[in-house]
Amino acid sequence: MSVLPGKYNVYLSAFEGMLEGYCAALSCPRGLAEGMSYSLLAGGKRLRPVLFFAALDVFGCDWERESELALALECIHTYSLIHDDLPAMDNDDLRRGKPSNHKMFGEGNAILAGDALLSEAFTLSVTAAKDEPHRRAAEILARAAGAEGMVAGQFSDLACERDDNAGERELAFIYENKTAQLIRAPLMMAAAIAGRDEAPMKEFGTVLGVLFQMTDDILDVKGESEKMGKTPGKDEEENKLTCVRVFGREGAERRADALASVCSNALAGMGIQTGFFEELVSYIRGRDR
Amino acid sequence: MSVLPGKYNVYLSAFEGMLEGYCAALSCPRGLAEGMSYSLLAGGKRLRPVLFFAALDVFGCDWERESELALALECIHTYSLIHDDLPAMDNDDLRRGKPSNHKMFGEGNAILAGDALLSEAFTLSVTAAKDEPHRRAAEILARAAGAEGMVAGQFSDLACERDDNAGERELAFIYENKTAQLIRAPLMMAAAIAGRDEAPMKEFGTVLGVLFQMTDDILDVKGESEKMGKTPGKDEEENKLTCVRVFGREGAERRADALASVCSNALAGMGIQTGFFEELVSYIRGRDR
Repeated sequence: MSVLPGKYNVYLSAFEGMLEGYCAALSCPRGLAEGMSYSLLAGGKRLRPVLFFAALDVFGCDWERESELALALECIHTYSLIHDDLPAMDNDDLRRGKPSNHKMFGEGNAILAGDALLSEAFTLSVTAAKDEPHRRAAEILARAAGAEGMVAGQFSDLACERDDNAGERELAFIYENKTAQLIRAPLMMAAAIAGRDEAPMKEFGTVLGVLFQMTDDILDVKGESEKMGKTPGKDEEENKLTCVRVFGREGAERRADALASVCSNALAGMGIQTGFFEELVSYIRGRDR
Repeated sequence: MSVLPGKYNVYLSAFEGMLEGYCAALSCPRGLAEGMSYSLLAGGKRLRPVLFFAALDVFGCDWERESELALALECIHTYSLIHDDLPAMDNDDLRRGKPSNHKMFGEGNAILAGDALLSEAFTLSVTAAKDEPHRRAAEILARAAGAEGMVAGQFSDLACERDDNAGERELAFIYENKTAQLIRAPLMMAAAIAGRDEAPMKEFGTVLGVLFQMTDDILDVKGESEKMGKTPGKDEEENKLTCVRVFGREGAERRADALASVCSNALAGMGIQTGFFEELVSYIRGRDR
């Protein structure tokens, strides 16, 4: 049984409050706001904003004042899920235990809800960028999300479904870009805002992100639909390039354990209070949903 | 015969040079860069960057130094065309005389090329936002593109295809948001960078944008596929809400003439050299492609 770090729920519930306020204030056409809010408010771990708040907190910053960039992070994550679930992409009918956005609102509206959320992240970020540390944080986020970041990862993920020669090298690229880019971004953004070195957070966040995606792929093999809130076993069905396809189930588990150790080592040299992050690594390695 | 303003090609060719350099430097996965460049380099009038440069020039700014925001404008326009052409949206096989992006690269890759271009606009904008005037310009762009701007317009456009009760009010909303938002944005961005009042440019740009979309819709009825580079007659086929559907062909032509006069009046009170913009209004009113 895997337990969340003690303070996780403090950050989480603060963020949920910000998100509810944000959704209530959306003043776009009602149907569009409904589609955006449906996916934003579908629950989830809020891992990216929580990582952002936790890192700001550890660096001694007033994390509760950084709602705009936290919301931008979640908008980008949510748009990526909406677009990934589309029939032309991963074709998933279920997300977080509910019908995916295009099953509820139709494909055209789901594409637009995703576009709107990415645009909102853009607006929130430039609104926040009123001094150089915040501008730099916004730039980290934009690059992590874009053509040389998350979108590159999703592009390769799609391409490798059709490529039986894809192996460890392609898998590393997908993990680092599709997932780790947006896991390390909030940690690096917090460092930028705090005026600290971004490099150690980049290193730790990359490994944490890869670990997170590995456990996700392992869960897809052993998972139960009710716990996961999405359809298990889909990766194999769609010939997804995952650690299980490349290393086998046991090999993947061994590599996840090794990565969890790499995470702990990266934290040890950082010279900050790392308790929250250590507990988070244990949680992620042991999670069952 | 409608003639472009004398300086149009100066701004246009400077921008084409910037765009070619930008595309050549894209360092994302090759297939993704190909999809992005295919649509970015498919030609087009480059109206939005040209408006941006022309307004900067009139305000006495060094317009050639503002490549980042000019590229961001064209990235947003191009992403919107790629997504609009998708089967789940306007389902158009032809764009600028060539197969649309999803016909060339597949739907999944086209969705991602659009996402990548919007993300690139985000990155380019926060990179440019190193002082408050440029940050404000980036914010104008982000809001114009987003859930309360262009995406809202496209959402309503889709909704009105299925709504035979939609009329003049809905049409005005679509024109203002789907098209005019991103036509007035470069004018307002230039004012922000120059430290001038944004309001007169907002007023002029809104009317110019509506005029541009009206002439586009009129062209769809009378146009020829070879000149337009897209399929004419599609609006009626798909029950699009256009000025022709609401006012009839002749009524639409009369309203376009009236709007061209409103544009000229808006320019007259602006206290700047408006020759370029006056010629542009005449060109847009008289264009046949």
